[in-house]
Amino acid sequence: MAHIELNNDLPGVIGLLTYRPETAKPIADLANTLLRSPGSLSRGERELIAATVSHGNECRFCANSHSAIAAHELDDRPLVDQVLADPAEAPVSGKLRALLHIAEQVRVSGKAVTPDHIAVARSAGATDLEIHDTVLIAAMFCMMNRYVDGLGTFAPLDPAGYAEAAKSIAANGYGA
Amino acid sequence: MAHIELNNDLPGVIGLLTYRPETAKPIADLANTLLRSPGSLSRGERELIAATVSHGNECRFCANSHSAIAAHELDDRPLVDQVLADPAEAPVSGKLRALLHIAEQVRVSGKAVTPDHIAVARSAGATDLEIHDTVLIAAMFCMMNRYVDGLGTFAPLDPAGYAEAAKSIAANGYGA
Repeated sequence: MAHIELNNDLPGVIGLLTYRPETAKPIADLANTLLRSPGSLSRGERELIAATVSHGNECRFCANSHSAIAAHELDDRPLVDQVLADPAEAPVSGKLRALLHIAEQVRVSGKAVTPDHIAVARSAGATDLEIHDTVLIAAMFCMMNRYVDGLGTFAPLDPAGYAEAAKSIAANGYGA
Repeated sequence: MAHIELNNDLPGVIGLLTYRPETAKPIADLANTLLRSPGSLSRGERELIAATVSHGNECRFCANSHSAIAAHELDDRPLVDQVLADPAEAPVSGKLRALLHIAEQVRVSGKAVTPDHIAVARSAGATDLEIHDTVLIAAMFCMMNRYVDGLGTFAPLDPAGYAEAAKSIAANGYGA
């Protein structure tokens, strides 16, 4: 049970967004822009960044949700599990590996990102916009993970529900 | 100098919002809703929560900015400095003290918030909506602090600039 009375039985962030539609709207807009709008990082790559940060923060609802969406977008659940287990060794591009490493620094602290991390990403082909969006996706999930767990929402255990929700989000976007 | 080429010389988050207007819009909407829309916590109290979290995360630009806005809204700079130095001892209401304590837990981790923290806030008169908004403000500034520092933006040293910006934000809102 959540720390506050949400007047709904919805899990994780869904219950919170339903409780407070005034803040739900800009949050969904930010998620759709960062994770789904046209860009040079695929939706699957961006969801992998969200899942990696959420996994690092041990936010079960967000980690399960964004892992499922990444797996759906990439059509590759084993790859998602490899990235979550060890992003440095998972078979992803050098660019994505460098961006995931930046995201992990952001998770710890913005100050943990150094010019060296940026230089590695640039030399692997990352553009400034890709670096910007990686930092903001990682930062956004530091917000979402704290929102979801700070209010004590519940996270279902059954993976099937997350897979079902992932299909709907992939088709319709966030907040639809 | 920021880690990426922003094509502008603006400090802190201002440079980032100008660089990427697509994400700036929902971020400003979220800030205006959480920090400025009508509510039972005053604008000054909400800015104190933002300043406290940013101070804890050692994000100079955000801490200076939101301290200046809190001081302007409350017309009490010494109180802001007392809260930043020691929120548990500063002369604020029991309710605000309990909410600042929840915000500090959120800053560390969403999971650090316990039913006891919520019970203390409730017994000091906090409503569920006030608790919700406190958690989300604290979470939002965990995002903003990482965004600002993760991209290596610069923070001016001169307090006069922050005080000037605070007046403008108090009058016109975020993103105006």
